[in-house]
Amino acid sequence: MSYLENVNSPKDIKKLNIDELDALCDEIRELMIDTVSKNGGHLASNLGAVELTVAMHKVFNSPSDQFVFDVGHQCYTHKILTGRKDSFSTLRTEGGISGFTRPCESNHDIFSSGHSSTSISAAIGLAKAKTLNGDKGKVIAVIGDGALTGGLAYEALNNAGNEHNNLIVILNDNNMSISDNVGSMAKNLNHIRISPKYFTFKSKIQHALSRVPKIGAQVQRFITITNTKIRKRLYHSTVFEDLGFRYYGPIDGHDLESLIDVLTVAKAHNNSVLVHVNTLKGKGYEFAEKNPSKFHGIGKFDIETGEPLSSGENYSSVFGDYLCELAKKDKRICAITAAMSTGTGLVDFSYKYPERFFDVGIAEEHAVTFSSGLAKNGMIPFFAVYSTFLQRSYDQLVHDVAMQDLKVIFGIDRAGFVGEDGESHQGVFDTAYLMSVPNLSVFAPSSFDELREMMYQAAYRENHAVAIRYPRGGQGKIIDGYKYERADFDTFGDTNAEKCIVGFGREFLNVYDALGELDNTFAIKLNRIKPINPNVLDLLKNVKTVYFFEEGIKSGGVGECFGSMLAESDVTAKFRHICIEDEFIKQASVDSQLKKYRLDKESIIDIVNQD
Amino acid sequence: MSYLENVNSPKDIKKLNIDELDALCDEIRELMIDTVSKNGGHLASNLGAVELTVAMHKVFNSPSDQFVFDVGHQCYTHKILTGRKDSFSTLRTEGGISGFTRPCESNHDIFSSGHSSTSISAAIGLAKAKTLNGDKGKVIAVIGDGALTGGLAYEALNNAGNEHNNLIVILNDNNMSISDNVGSMAKNLNHIRISPKYFTFKSKIQHALSRVPKIGAQVQRFITITNTKIRKRLYHSTVFEDLGFRYYGPIDGHDLESLIDVLTVAKAHNNSVLVHVNTLKGKGYEFAEKNPSKFHGIGKFDIETGEPLSSGENYSSVFGDYLCELAKKDKRICAITAAMSTGTGLVDFSYKYPERFFDVGIAEEHAVTFSSGLAKNGMIPFFAVYSTFLQRSYDQLVHDVAMQDLKVIFGIDRAGFVGEDGESHQGVFDTAYLMSVPNLSVFAPSSFDELREMMYQAAYRENHAVAIRYPRGGQGKIIDGYKYERADFDTFGDTNAEKCIVGFGREFLNVYDALGELDNTFAIKLNRIKPINPNVLDLLKNVKTVYFFEEGIKSGGVGECFGSMLAESDVTAKFRHICIEDEFIKQASVDSQLKKYRLDKESIIDIVNQD
Repeated sequence: MSYLENVNSPKDIKKLNIDELDALCDEIRELMIDTVSKNGGHLASNLGAVELTVAMHKVFNSPSDQFVFDVGHQCYTHKILTGRKDSFSTLRTEGGISGFTRPCESNHDIFSSGHSSTSISAAIGLAKAKTLNGDKGKVIAVIGDGALTGGLAYEALNNAGNEHNNLIVILNDNNMSISDNVGSMAKNLNHIRISPKYFTFKSKIQHALSRVPKIGAQVQRFITITNTKIRKRLYHSTVFEDLGFRYYGPIDGHDLESLIDVLTVAKAHNNSVLVHVNTLKGKGYEFAEKNPSKFHGIGKFDIETGEPLSSGENYSSVFGDYLCELAKKDKRICAITAAMSTGTGLVDFSYKYPERFFDVGIAEEHAVTFSSGLAKNGMIPFFAVYSTFLQRSYDQLVHDVAMQDLKVIFGIDRAGFVGEDGESHQGVFDTAYLMSVPNLSVFAPSSFDELREMMYQAAYRENHAVAIRYPRGGQGKIIDGYKYERADFDTFGDTNAEKCIVGFGREFLNVYDALGELDNTFAIKLNRIKPINPNVLDLLKNVKTVYFFEEGIKSGGVGECFGSMLAESDVTAKFRHICIEDEFIKQASVDSQLKKYRLDKESIIDIVNQD
Repeated sequence: MSYLENVNSPKDIKKLNIDELDALCDEIRELMIDTVSKNGGHLASNLGAVELTVAMHKVFNSPSDQFVFDVGHQCYTHKILTGRKDSFSTLRTEGGISGFTRPCESNHDIFSSGHSSTSISAAIGLAKAKTLNGDKGKVIAVIGDGALTGGLAYEALNNAGNEHNNLIVILNDNNMSISDNVGSMAKNLNHIRISPKYFTFKSKIQHALSRVPKIGAQVQRFITITNTKIRKRLYHSTVFEDLGFRYYGPIDGHDLESLIDVLTVAKAHNNSVLVHVNTLKGKGYEFAEKNPSKFHGIGKFDIETGEPLSSGENYSSVFGDYLCELAKKDKRICAITAAMSTGTGLVDFSYKYPERFFDVGIAEEHAVTFSSGLAKNGMIPFFAVYSTFLQRSYDQLVHDVAMQDLKVIFGIDRAGFVGEDGESHQGVFDTAYLMSVPNLSVFAPSSFDELREMMYQAAYRENHAVAIRYPRGGQGKIIDGYKYERADFDTFGDTNAEKCIVGFGREFLNVYDALGELDNTFAIKLNRIKPINPNVLDLLKNVKTVYFFEEGIKSGGVGECFGSMLAESDVTAKFRHICIEDEFIKQASVDSQLKKYRLDKESIIDIVNQD
């Protein structure tokens, strides 16, 4: 670890030559692979962006030049180079450094990341503010080709125009989003990517720069030459130029010299510039190069074999397998994903029923409105999506699904705490924002069997849109002898007891476990959490205190609805709502998060026994 | 009214020749101008799409061929031609026909509209389902150039590719969104629009068709010729072809013959086709042609003079004027709009402070993330947006504003009932979805003065993001002697009374009016509706019943939060929540809507006196 040892801030990079920087890149990769093998993380995309990030820090001056990393799946090198190499071992652990950029962590992390396609919008805002402030620094957005399928990125590109003298967009093109990249834009990039003219570009830059020892007026002249003479021959597509950018590329994203050259040119520009860089996802780690999807987001794994240390059936795989079963018997069943076929368990479906499988790219809004169209003409579409990403489709859910009462079915994966991904990925808002949508029912299974039963119910027993929310991972324990038989709620224990504990989904398992150790208490398991069946109030006539445990945000959520129903009813029971207050949830293990928010079995027992 | 009289369904159009159809178009325009002058509506864009819609019904067979009108600002002709000409006089009135497409109204209205940029997504879903069903009909999306700035439209274009043999997108290019069109895509269209080759295209089509009396194999041949020989010379931009479409255009959107020709060609295609049509917003009504923005959405007006029958100060103008005042003293104040500078009162601001005014086009997601960037680098951005359109930015609000705790200020216009625009435009969801967002305060003024005061407070007295929600139109009555002094809530009447009535925003004025006629009752006015200050509970210790009146959706909203707080507290008062249950709100006057949902003064008095 000879070079990395001496790099404590971006300044230390400026002193190193190309060979030394190349060696530094190797060391960074080693640290990255080692850490992610122990902590889990987003490995493949980060491995692809090592040279690019080193070149950015060589050419620009962070934080007066501001870097905005889209999604944050490519920020590990940046973290290592900006004073966080020693704490990098705490990646994604409680109290440790985040797997995404977080301004609270470092002044080099300009803008929070986690969700896709935000970087160019943010960068335009940052750049415009710099202009208004008379601040000379540049703003550099780094965005993957996958994130370009998101409409927000296009809105930003369309809005950037050529008016900015301080905006640089780096397109980190690894020919993938999270799964395979889709869509026409991707095909365009592919056309550019394989152009033989790419090789000549590099030599031309080198030649030009050899003639301009000092960056300044002469680089400007070079730019002019490039733009008028060479430019048009360099690439096939004019799409970025059509959108107002000066375009450079494609550049080999693992060739430090080319990268430094092109970024130097981009820095000297007085227009909005787009630099197109080709990188290899997983670069430098054989297993990740061969199977980048598997190493996109991965848990702990064995470095020698590339094999994950844990696996097995989980809610996503159960969802995907059962959807295949349904699709086998019913040609109307369709599966939709927004670039998450692996994550949501739909890979098998995509092989078995390719004509009814739709990966729309990172385009959650489109996924929902497209599904509405399918439903309108008689299909039964299941859109499988992480809770946190469905936030993007709130309006489409309201306006295109619910308003015209179309039966689109949502498989909401990663609902509730998700653990180590932290603030940007917790699935704790869907319980709130879905409550407000008319013509929609929301279900929460507590086991694989319930998930399957609810999927069947959604497809064949419900007349409106349905959302089924289930957690990340496995089902853990199950409730012996319990079978979900489509009741909106079920009870456990003697309903004449004076205390009642209520829960739903995964959290109900903790409620149920606690019930075994509580006196004078019964439990209600809500299966349909929206709308809440008002008959549940009949059970509470003699109850003194109702405790509602919710793995979701308080304000606007299920428990508040329940509490308000109590207040409107004749029930005189007191209400206690244990859930997530008005805040974002930091990374930690799910168990730790449950404990912190007093939703684990022990906390439940303590809370109920306190009264 | 000779031709229109005899047109009762699209079939009747098929019999008419070009001259007769031209005359029909004149009659349709006359009916449209007459009706909108009495009922209000979206006039300019509808006037522009008369010939286009007539040509569509001439060439295609609705509803087996399915038309999807984006936003619905161009569907009046379609309504008139599909059996609704006699009921057209009821446009936008209670129980009458909607100003937007509504499937419940006619089987010719395939997909609901109202919000922008949804049509291509929906059409792809409809087309794909037709393919899976073996249904031979075509699906035709009609989308304006303004709606193309929305990311959802791009996600759909990117996803459509060339695989569909039944998908036609008609770009109705009137060189405007609602206000002036913005962005690089618009500039591209402009480049196409002025191409002299447009004129030659028409003659070439005519020539080709003259040689192919029957549509069929020969049209296919013509298409091949067109594609290989002529196509590349016809237009400058390859952006739509890059995205996988066969492109035809630009066509004169008021020349029925050309329109019918090109749609006939498009119909015979076995690829995704994009037809680019140039139209004039306001066509055929002089005042609307001259000032299309004014006639985009307009209330009742005098046909002879083109002048609106009512005007005057309203919440939007107060917002805009006061923002100018703030901007004059503070260079950090910025104004952002998503193609709604007129609607949100920002026209003056755009003239006075152009460098700090940002119209991002119909791109609400981008508007929010862009504002976050501005805020991060020290600006004080005010994003003025209709409540119903901010639904599009829920994730950006959570992920880009709240999660990193940036102070973006939202001026939420058209909050609450909006009257005649109906289901798709009611501002009744923001009260719910905003409740779930941490690091955000929501305020609701009941007068112009309060709005100004809250804007000042948001800019200079609050440390987090702020949303201020205010209704469409004027302030009506004000509360004598009351001044908002930044308390989270205020009380009216004797707080020792046994009944308490609670409200916020415009609805509080009804609550206050009712108070004057109620015994043993006091009123609470919530100024900050999120978070609700828990001190309000102290006022309720001796109260027997709390009545909460809310111009918003019940589930997840402010009242439920209040009710749940009651249930969690020591207060034993009963709770009654009067608001909008789980449903969408149909068009009617605001007064009628208030009465229907028992939120008017008389209903409040009745409800409270009942107990």
